[in-house]
Amino acid sequence: MSERINHRAFTERLMSAEQAAAFVKPGMTVAMSGFTGAGYPKAVPGALAKLIAAEHDAGGEFKINVLTGASTAPELDGVLARAEGMNLRLPYMSDPDLRRRINDGDMEYMDIHLSHVAQHAWFGFYGKIDLAIVEVAGITADGELIPSTSVGNNKTWLEMADHVILEVNKQQSAALEGMHDLYYGTALPPHRKPIELTTPRDRIGQKYLDIDVRKVVAVVETDAPDRLSPFAPVDETSERIADHLLSFLDYEIRQGRLSEKLLPLQSGVGNIANAVLAGLARGGYKGLTAYTEVIQDGMLELIKDGTIDFASATSFSLSTEGVEEFNKNIDRYRDRILLRPQEISNHPEIIRRLGCIALNGMIEADIYGNVNSTNVLGSKVMNGIGGSGDFARNGYLSVFMSPSTAKGGKISGIVPFASHVDHTEHDTMILITEQGLADLRGHSPKQRAQLVIDNCAHSDYKALLQDYFDRACSQSYGKHTPHLLGEALSWHQRFEQTGDMRPAS
Amino acid sequence: MSERINHRAFTERLMSAEQAAAFVKPGMTVAMSGFTGAGYPKAVPGALAKLIAAEHDAGGEFKINVLTGASTAPELDGVLARAEGMNLRLPYMSDPDLRRRINDGDMEYMDIHLSHVAQHAWFGFYGKIDLAIVEVAGITADGELIPSTSVGNNKTWLEMADHVILEVNKQQSAALEGMHDLYYGTALPPHRKPIELTTPRDRIGQKYLDIDVRKVVAVVETDAPDRLSPFAPVDETSERIADHLLSFLDYEIRQGRLSEKLLPLQSGVGNIANAVLAGLARGGYKGLTAYTEVIQDGMLELIKDGTIDFASATSFSLSTEGVEEFNKNIDRYRDRILLRPQEISNHPEIIRRLGCIALNGMIEADIYGNVNSTNVLGSKVMNGIGGSGDFARNGYLSVFMSPSTAKGGKISGIVPFASHVDHTEHDTMILITEQGLADLRGHSPKQRAQLVIDNCAHSDYKALLQDYFDRACSQSYGKHTPHLLGEALSWHQRFEQTGDMRPAS
Repeated sequence: MSERINHRAFTERLMSAEQAAAFVKPGMTVAMSGFTGAGYPKAVPGALAKLIAAEHDAGGEFKINVLTGASTAPELDGVLARAEGMNLRLPYMSDPDLRRRINDGDMEYMDIHLSHVAQHAWFGFYGKIDLAIVEVAGITADGELIPSTSVGNNKTWLEMADHVILEVNKQQSAALEGMHDLYYGTALPPHRKPIELTTPRDRIGQKYLDIDVRKVVAVVETDAPDRLSPFAPVDETSERIADHLLSFLDYEIRQGRLSEKLLPLQSGVGNIANAVLAGLARGGYKGLTAYTEVIQDGMLELIKDGTIDFASATSFSLSTEGVEEFNKNIDRYRDRILLRPQEISNHPEIIRRLGCIALNGMIEADIYGNVNSTNVLGSKVMNGIGGSGDFARNGYLSVFMSPSTAKGGKISGIVPFASHVDHTEHDTMILITEQGLADLRGHSPKQRAQLVIDNCAHSDYKALLQDYFDRACSQSYGKHTPHLLGEALSWHQRFEQTGDMRPAS
Repeated sequence: MSERINHRAFTERLMSAEQAAAFVKPGMTVAMSGFTGAGYPKAVPGALAKLIAAEHDAGGEFKINVLTGASTAPELDGVLARAEGMNLRLPYMSDPDLRRRINDGDMEYMDIHLSHVAQHAWFGFYGKIDLAIVEVAGITADGELIPSTSVGNNKTWLEMADHVILEVNKQQSAALEGMHDLYYGTALPPHRKPIELTTPRDRIGQKYLDIDVRKVVAVVETDAPDRLSPFAPVDETSERIADHLLSFLDYEIRQGRLSEKLLPLQSGVGNIANAVLAGLARGGYKGLTAYTEVIQDGMLELIKDGTIDFASATSFSLSTEGVEEFNKNIDRYRDRILLRPQEISNHPEIIRRLGCIALNGMIEADIYGNVNSTNVLGSKVMNGIGGSGDFARNGYLSVFMSPSTAKGGKISGIVPFASHVDHTEHDTMILITEQGLADLRGHSPKQRAQLVIDNCAHSDYKALLQDYFDRACSQSYGKHTPHLLGEALSWHQRFEQTGDMRPAS
C-alpha cells in the first residue's frame, strides 16, 4: 500500500501522469478539481498539455472543454492555455496565459455565478462530462476520498463524470482529514428539500467524498504544493478602504442595526480583503464568524487571535508561511474551519438565511451603483464574477470596494456609465474607495449618484463626474436615471484611444 | 356591528376616509397595501391627496414617502402623483401620472427586487415606518384581519408601522377568507431558520393577519372594486413568442431535462404572459403548478380546465369577468390557490428549491444576453424590475421575452449594448422574440451573440447587428465580450435624435 492510498482497488490503478493523460481524448469535456489555486491536479494536466502539443505538432486537432471549481494555477490553466488545448473554459479563471488567449478571441470562456455551476451541470446545461480529474489528500481503507485543500465542485464532478482520474497528493496536510463537510442532500427539482444549515459551524454532511471505484481509470501519486499566493503587504490605499469599512461597521453597531458579533463575513481575495481582515483584528472584534469561499493567511491569523471563532469556506488559499502555520498549529484550526462544496458555500438559500456581510472588489462602479467586476473597458475579461453575485444579491449587506483610480490615475474606478454590469443598481448597497464610502441604501438613483461623486470619486475625476451628472439631469431623455448617451462611454473610449480617461487639458 | 367588521375594538374606530387621512402628516413614511392593482386602499389615498392639494394651495409643503407591495392604481399612485404628494416611492409602479413625474425628475423612485423589500424594511434601510394603510376583506370576531386580493408586504407593514389605518372593503369576495397563507416564521439574521416549503401547495402559515389593535387609529369602510385589468386579446406577435416557448419546452421534455409536469411556472403580467398561458392549455399540459406573483384571468382558465393543478401567488389581478368567474365557481378555485407574502412568493430560497421556470418580459436585450427590464434609452423608467430578478437568478430556467421591435419597427428589442442592465449575462438563459428563440445555456458571450442575432433579431436590424458584432470581433479592445465603445449606444442615441434606431438610408 502507498502511504496515502489505503485501499487495494485504488493501488491497482496506480500509474504515471503520462499514462493517465492518455485517457483524455479530443473533444472531451473534462471536469477538474481546483478553487483559487488550491486542490487542483498537479501532474495530469501537464502531461496532457504535452500530448496536446505533440498532436498539434503532428498537424492534428486536440482541444477539450475544461470545467473546474474556480481558478487553478499555471500547472493547469497555464499549460493547457499555452498548448492551445481548450475550446471552452468555465466558470472562473485568473491565469495570465489563459486570460490572454480568451481576450485574444482564441477560445471561449463562460463566466458563471459559482453557486450555479454544479446545478447547471446536473441540469444538463453543459452536456455530458466525460472525465473528472480530481486531487485528493488520500484514500481511506474503506475506499472513500479524503478531500484536498479545496472542495469546489468535486462532489458533482465525481458523481457526474463517466470516468475518473484521481491525483493523490501526499504533500497536502494529513490534518485535512475531517475538516470537510460534504453535503449529499442535493437533488434535482421538484425533489429538493431545505438545507438545514443555520450557522456557519453546522455540519450537515460527511467527511469523505464517495467514489464509485469502477469509474476510476487511473490513480496518480503526486508530491507538490498548491500554487503559493504571494503575501502582499497591505498598502496605504487598501488600509484606507478598510478604515472606511470599519468606521461604517462601527456606525451600524451604534445604530443598533448590527451586533458586536456582526454577521457572517464573506470576503474576497487580495490586498483589500487582507487589509479588511487586519483591520478587524485591530478593531477589537471578537468571536466573529465567516461564511465565505476562501481561507487566506489573514483569516488564519484572525482565528488564532480569537477575532474569528469559526470560518466556513470551500477552499484554502494559503502562502507557504500560511501552510506552515496551519500545519504547526493544526489544533487551533481543526475545529474552527470547515470546507464545503461551493454549491453550499455560495448557496443563495444559506447566504440569505445567515445574512452574510458581502465584501467584494470591483473594476469600476458607475455613479448609479452599477458594478463591473469582470470586463475592463466592457470587453476584456479580468477573472470573472466568481461568487460576488451570490453574496451581493443575497447577503445582509453588499459592499463593493476599489481604489478610486488605477494605472497611476489614468483610469477612474467611478465612471459615468459602467462598461459592463455584473451587479446591478438593485444589488449594491455600499461603495468604498480610499476617498470614502457611499451608503446607497434607501436612496434613488439620483441621490446615489451625488453620494458616489461626493464620497468615492478621486479629485481628478470629481468635477468631471459632477459635470456629467448635472448636464444629464437637465438634458437626459428620462430623468429617473439621467444619462447622456453620446458621452456615457466616452471615458472608456478615451482610455482606449489615449491611454488616459482624463481629457487632454 | 358592520357586515365585515366583527370586533368591537375596530368598529369603535370607524370613521370617514377624510378623518382617517388627517393622521397623515408631511414627511411621514407611509406603507400601503397593494400589488399589481389589487388590494390597495381605495379611499384614504384620495382623501389624503385632497389634504395635500389644499396644503399646497395654501403655500405649504406636504409630501410623504410611499412604500407598497408593487404597483397600485390611479386611486392611489395617480391621485398622489397628481397632487405632487410624494418625495419617494418604492418598490414598483405602473401608473402613468406617477411615471411621468418620476421621469420628469420631480420625485425620487427606488426600483427594488420585490423579495428584498420586506427584509430591507426590517433591517432598517428605509427608516421608520410611521403609518400603514392596508385594505382587508374583513375583521374576524377574534380581531384578526382577513387579507384582501393581495398580500404583498402587508404583514411587514402592519408589524412595523407605528400606527395603522385599515380599509375594510366589502366589495372584495367573502370567499377570499382562508385562501391566504401568512408565514410568521421570518426573523432577522442570525436567527433565521429554513422555510419549510417544498411544493407550491404547502401551507406554512396562518389564514389571517395579526394586528395589534392599539396601533389602529382608524377603520374606514369601502365598497369599491380593484382596478380592472382590461383583457387584451392575444395578438399574433405574442402568439408566435408563446409558440417558440412551447416548442422549446417540448424539446426539453424530449431531451429528458423536464418532465411532462414541467416545474412550477412563474409568469409575468401582460399580453405575452396571457399568450403563453393560453398556449399551455392548447399544448395539452395537465397537472402543472405555478409559483408566481400574480393570478390573472388566464391562470383561472387553466385551473378550471385542469392544465394547472395549483397556483401560489401573492396577488390576484383579475378583470371584471375574472372576478365574476372567480365568484361564480369559487369551489373550483378555493383549494387550488394560495396567496402569500411577497417575501415568500419571491424568496430566493424557495424559487431555487422549487426550480421555477421564470417567464418574464423585457424592454431590450443586447447580443450578449444582458437584459434591460426597466429603463427606456437607459434613463426613462417604465415600471421597475419587480420580481423578475428574484425568479431569473434563482429559477431552473430564466426566459426573457419581447417582440423583436417596438414603435412600429423604430426600436429594436435586440441591441448591440443594453442601455441599462437589470439581468446580467450571468442570469439569462433563453431569449425569445416572435422571430425565434436563442438558447444561451452553456455558451460563451460570442457564441451567444451569434445565436441572438440569428434567431431573435428582426430582419430590419439583423444585418446591422451582424456588422457591429463582426467589426467588434476584429477591433474590440478585448475579444471576450467584443464591443465598439464609440458605437455601443449609438442606436439608442439615434432613436433619441431621430425617433428611429435605423440609420437614414
